[in-house]
Amino acid sequence: MRLATRKTASPDGELVVVDARLATCLPVPEIAPTLQAALDDWQRCAPLLRDAAKQLQAGQARHAQPFDPAACHSPLPRAYQWADGSAYLNHVELVRKARNAEVPATFYTDPLMYQGGSDSFIGPRDPIIAKESWGIDFEAEVAVITGEVPLGATPAQAAQAIRLVLLVNDVSLRHLIPAELAKGFGFFQSKPASAFSPVAITPDALGAAWRDNKLHLPLRVWVNDRLFGLPNAGVDMTFDFAQLIAHAAKTRRLAAGSIIGAGTVSNKQGGLWGSKIEHGGVGYACIAEARTYETLEHGAPSTPFLRDGDRVRIDMQDASGQSLFGAIDNRVQALPE
Amino acid sequence: MRLATRKTASPDGELVVVDARLATCLPVPEIAPTLQAALDDWQRCAPLLRDAAKQLQAGQARHAQPFDPAACHSPLPRAYQWADGSAYLNHVELVRKARNAEVPATFYTDPLMYQGGSDSFIGPRDPIIAKESWGIDFEAEVAVITGEVPLGATPAQAAQAIRLVLLVNDVSLRHLIPAELAKGFGFFQSKPASAFSPVAITPDALGAAWRDNKLHLPLRVWVNDRLFGLPNAGVDMTFDFAQLIAHAAKTRRLAAGSIIGAGTVSNKQGGLWGSKIEHGGVGYACIAEARTYETLEHGAPSTPFLRDGDRVRIDMQDASGQSLFGAIDNRVQALPE
Repeated sequence: MRLATRKTASPDGELVVVDARLATCLPVPEIAPTLQAALDDWQRCAPLLRDAAKQLQAGQARHAQPFDPAACHSPLPRAYQWADGSAYLNHVELVRKARNAEVPATFYTDPLMYQGGSDSFIGPRDPIIAKESWGIDFEAEVAVITGEVPLGATPAQAAQAIRLVLLVNDVSLRHLIPAELAKGFGFFQSKPASAFSPVAITPDALGAAWRDNKLHLPLRVWVNDRLFGLPNAGVDMTFDFAQLIAHAAKTRRLAAGSIIGAGTVSNKQGGLWGSKIEHGGVGYACIAEARTYETLEHGAPSTPFLRDGDRVRIDMQDASGQSLFGAIDNRVQALPE
Repeated sequence: MRLATRKTASPDGELVVVDARLATCLPVPEIAPTLQAALDDWQRCAPLLRDAAKQLQAGQARHAQPFDPAACHSPLPRAYQWADGSAYLNHVELVRKARNAEVPATFYTDPLMYQGGSDSFIGPRDPIIAKESWGIDFEAEVAVITGEVPLGATPAQAAQAIRLVLLVNDVSLRHLIPAELAKGFGFFQSKPASAFSPVAITPDALGAAWRDNKLHLPLRVWVNDRLFGLPNAGVDMTFDFAQLIAHAAKTRRLAAGSIIGAGTVSNKQGGLWGSKIEHGGVGYACIAEARTYETLEHGAPSTPFLRDGDRVRIDMQDASGQSLFGAIDNRVQALPE
């Protein structure tokens, strides 16, 4: 089952079910007006939404409409929780290596996770509004939306609470990060509003690509129509989504509609040469990682952060080339300095 | 105007207006079913809610009911944002002094703020459920709930967006903090669900106590019926609420219903002797601060963190002794280790 949220005058938009080709959709106000409402009452809503999705898929939905990703908001336009892990430790190892620091042994047993702002996401096709001097970067990621998770849930219990899978562009302001992290309280100004994929999918609809609580497919990233990375989200993921959710729920319950991310996808590969797309590497899911390779090999970064008008596109396809989530496609709209 | 949220089967409860003596209340489903709904449509709802509050105050509300703080949830039982500043730098100075560290000069110009979990607050009279070995502490604070705040809002614009003022118990798990902050991503497991006061008040209803975007009244804290602190929330506040909101909005807009806290209230005072209530001091708004004074003067802390069955009560009264927000009163219900 595939769900999306169309923009309306309401801040929460309107829930629609979407067919597997992302060609048509069907509003379902009689089941749930919004995705949060469906998540709040999932036991009742999920079977009804599945029936509606089957009808739509069979071409039997009388009120089917064309599906337009550009008319979509993030599936949860505002959420009660957005917590982002850093499960691909290759990324952390690289960054540490660039500054001659060790990765603490506990990083391999205790996930890194930060509490993100969730009050006003941008839509999958909305502009990133920021100053160029802030160092505008993207982070291409996979995330899940949970049902209720009890305090102290085990990873097995957490796995049962995974309702939907989706993609994220976790926009990051690199030049604001060092000073902010040095203050000790984590990210705030350096992590502005994120964008999510137009469509969120139930794990069963991902078939064999969803196993071991990981999504085993390449995440494709383009910057200005140039392929920038295609790392596999199922590879080199030190913590799976069940472990990440259990980490988040260690000291408090999680409400239905919590979004838990796994961090920038990053696969182990050779140095800068070996990691480049044109040399058979998988490239990068954020500019910072390209710059880290460049710093390690040449002493300085050369790939610039995003500038006014630059576009980042994030997509994931199944074996047949069908886009699973619809593409995130954000263009930078630079604020005056 | 005073607003509260009564618990119902719905996760968002039911909005009520409350009279100035916190004796009676009135549900207002015809105006807004929930506080978030009222905040989403404040221009329309605020005048109607004020009319309802006036009727209630005049004893003319036909459907008035007794107001029971124990039946209340936090005014926003779940919120789209909870961001907590650390505006009382005395607290930071003390903690740093205890470990022989300087307070960076930038701390006096750039507020400390962390993104807190907001998906499932506990109610003002609900138990704190945690393990004693986590080092259970409270932090008595003042917070505001905002309307929409545009990206890059000035403090003057931010001040206009303050809709409601309320109290917070920002529950903190002290023994989890050092390892978590050392990871560099800020608080997560060490900050479980917070509790808010039963009542939230519009700034105008606070009269002269609300000025310069600060609340100039003592915040009273009891631990197990012993007065533990009564620091004045308007004293030694380095950043006012307008500055804190502007800090939060530097790189992204804030949605209506964002809760911005000012951190543990802390007044400058003499050493341990001078700070004790029985010696005329104002005591402490968290146990960690008492322990810091003890460490500075005796080399080790002596006040224990909260244990199973311990209660913390947080209240604020006007000049006549009337409770303004109703008291937060949380009892620890320890989890098995």
